[in-house]
Amino acid sequence: MSTLLNDTFLRALLRQPTDYTPLWLMRQAGRYLPEYCATRARAGDFLSLCKSPDMACEVTLQPLARYDLDAAILFSDILTIPDAMGLGLYFSTGEGPRFERPLRDEWEIRNLTAPDPHGHLRYVIDAVSEIRRALDGSVPLIGFSGSPFTLACYMVEGSGSDTYAETKKMLYGRPDLFHHILDVTATAVTNYLNAQIEAGAQAVMVFDSWGGMLSQAAYLEFSLPYMARIMNGLTREREGRIVPRIVFTKGGGQWLEYIAGCGCDAVGLDWTTDIGDARRRVGDRVALQGNMDPSVLFAPPEAIATEARRILDSYGTGTGHVFNLGHGISQFTPPDHVSALVEAVHQHSRQYHR
Amino acid sequence: MSTLLNDTFLRALLRQPTDYTPLWLMRQAGRYLPEYCATRARAGDFLSLCKSPDMACEVTLQPLARYDLDAAILFSDILTIPDAMGLGLYFSTGEGPRFERPLRDEWEIRNLTAPDPHGHLRYVIDAVSEIRRALDGSVPLIGFSGSPFTLACYMVEGSGSDTYAETKKMLYGRPDLFHHILDVTATAVTNYLNAQIEAGAQAVMVFDSWGGMLSQAAYLEFSLPYMARIMNGLTREREGRIVPRIVFTKGGGQWLEYIAGCGCDAVGLDWTTDIGDARRRVGDRVALQGNMDPSVLFAPPEAIATEARRILDSYGTGTGHVFNLGHGISQFTPPDHVSALVEAVHQHSRQYHR
Repeated sequence: MSTLLNDTFLRALLRQPTDYTPLWLMRQAGRYLPEYCATRARAGDFLSLCKSPDMACEVTLQPLARYDLDAAILFSDILTIPDAMGLGLYFSTGEGPRFERPLRDEWEIRNLTAPDPHGHLRYVIDAVSEIRRALDGSVPLIGFSGSPFTLACYMVEGSGSDTYAETKKMLYGRPDLFHHILDVTATAVTNYLNAQIEAGAQAVMVFDSWGGMLSQAAYLEFSLPYMARIMNGLTREREGRIVPRIVFTKGGGQWLEYIAGCGCDAVGLDWTTDIGDARRRVGDRVALQGNMDPSVLFAPPEAIATEARRILDSYGTGTGHVFNLGHGISQFTPPDHVSALVEAVHQHSRQYHR
Repeated sequence: MSTLLNDTFLRALLRQPTDYTPLWLMRQAGRYLPEYCATRARAGDFLSLCKSPDMACEVTLQPLARYDLDAAILFSDILTIPDAMGLGLYFSTGEGPRFERPLRDEWEIRNLTAPDPHGHLRYVIDAVSEIRRALDGSVPLIGFSGSPFTLACYMVEGSGSDTYAETKKMLYGRPDLFHHILDVTATAVTNYLNAQIEAGAQAVMVFDSWGGMLSQAAYLEFSLPYMARIMNGLTREREGRIVPRIVFTKGGGQWLEYIAGCGCDAVGLDWTTDIGDARRRVGDRVALQGNMDPSVLFAPPEAIATEARRILDSYGTGTGHVFNLGHGISQFTPPDHVSALVEAVHQHSRQYHR
């Protein structure tokens, strides 16, 4: 493996000194980029794009060619694990992801097993290796997975949902069954992320996209403990470097003190949390990643720069901050607005790292 | 006006002693009740139902006939004010509310005026009077309005939204225009709620359904100050009683300390906040209303009772708690599950009020 030329992102996650605040953007390889849309059109559909290591590598690198970003993130879908478990992932136009066989039958739940990451998930691991080679040491590569709770939600609902009625029905009515799904899924995520690390991922992130619609009591029973178990099972060092772990619960701002204690190195924040307050709450236990409202990117460049500076000012002096959005970038973002953000973060943050 | 037979709800909002924890349910008059569906079918459509004081009165009283609830809430829509402002509210099947003329043009924004509550909103005020007469002092009547921010969102988007792109574009790009909409709307809400109080509403609630998708900085600039202005402009006493005010920002759990200082008597909580933590955070400044996940009502009655008890235990001893859901009741709720909840709350809470 080649030497890493820009390790600012990895250093910030471990709260080591850096020259500036690094940044990357959730869903940075996405539909707002015309070159992404072109590759996706060539692939035919989203799932074929995910399942081709060559094309996944191509789109992973696209935002890095345009913008001065400090990390690459594996292009993949968060639902690869349930798909490998046999639920039959598919995408119907304009409706988001769906499963052919939602998981509700007790017998099927009891028979759920964690997939071998080198079996049906081989295409993801191959993509990691290929992207890592293509990056050639320019910036670090982030591997990722959905959280057990978020995956279980999708598996039980069979699709996205406004109310999560089926999930909640099982969670409150048959907590034993729901815990069993989470248990198997936590093992699957641990193996999956370790295989990504083995293949070259230099940091990993767990996306708990739906944990924020739980009550605090339910979050502390059904989401956080399974993420903690994953943290505990991950490979800590690879190629002589620590592999930092980021945990992001969208809507989890009220539970930061708990999340900071789960064994992660960094906590992702959505935009509803004031990052300065968050820093005071978690102290020096973890780094923070975030947290600009992605909708700010619809505003004119000067307004974007103002908001980026407000967030950097709120975090204040010293390391431990990775700039990001508080959620994935919108497909309707004008690409040149992203340039304004990258420039504002890199320039304005230097004063806080002297 | 007749004597109020059950003032438990009003007393709890003012943190005065009560015998048990009162409860009502957001959207308690709604589609989960077959009798509501029958009245709505007779009305033809939702808006005709809202605009008929007789039928609005009828559905307001339906849940009280079934359940031992401690308050009634005016049956109406949160978008009556923008409709009276001339935006043309309509409901298209399965799509939720929409406006014929979303508010985006600067000239139109500058010409926006607060409607006279006794003009185009007369049907609401008439419904309040009629419901108050029909209740005959059994339980208090709650009046309500959407918050200026939530109303402005709908007015600018023209409909519900996942991303609120148009709202955020204006908020970050033309904050002066957005503030103007909020300013006019805050005046409208104040006049509207005062007219409801005048007509017989014994408590009022402001629903800030969408404030929770703002950054903290934006919430403190674009939502909370306008609710504070409304609190400051409301009639404080009527019929020799204080008229308590409740403010509910869905997703506002991180900002409770701020909300508690806006001049309200009680703060509504969604289910993501632990109510015991919330009580410690706000101290004796305000009462709290909430906060069971409405999806718990999909679970079996024993699980519902367990969760209700958990929330009452978390709040603990003493007054200042109005039990409610953390959001509107789902149309898919089995009506007999609501009985289980009401019974659990009334029974289990007595020990905390000795």
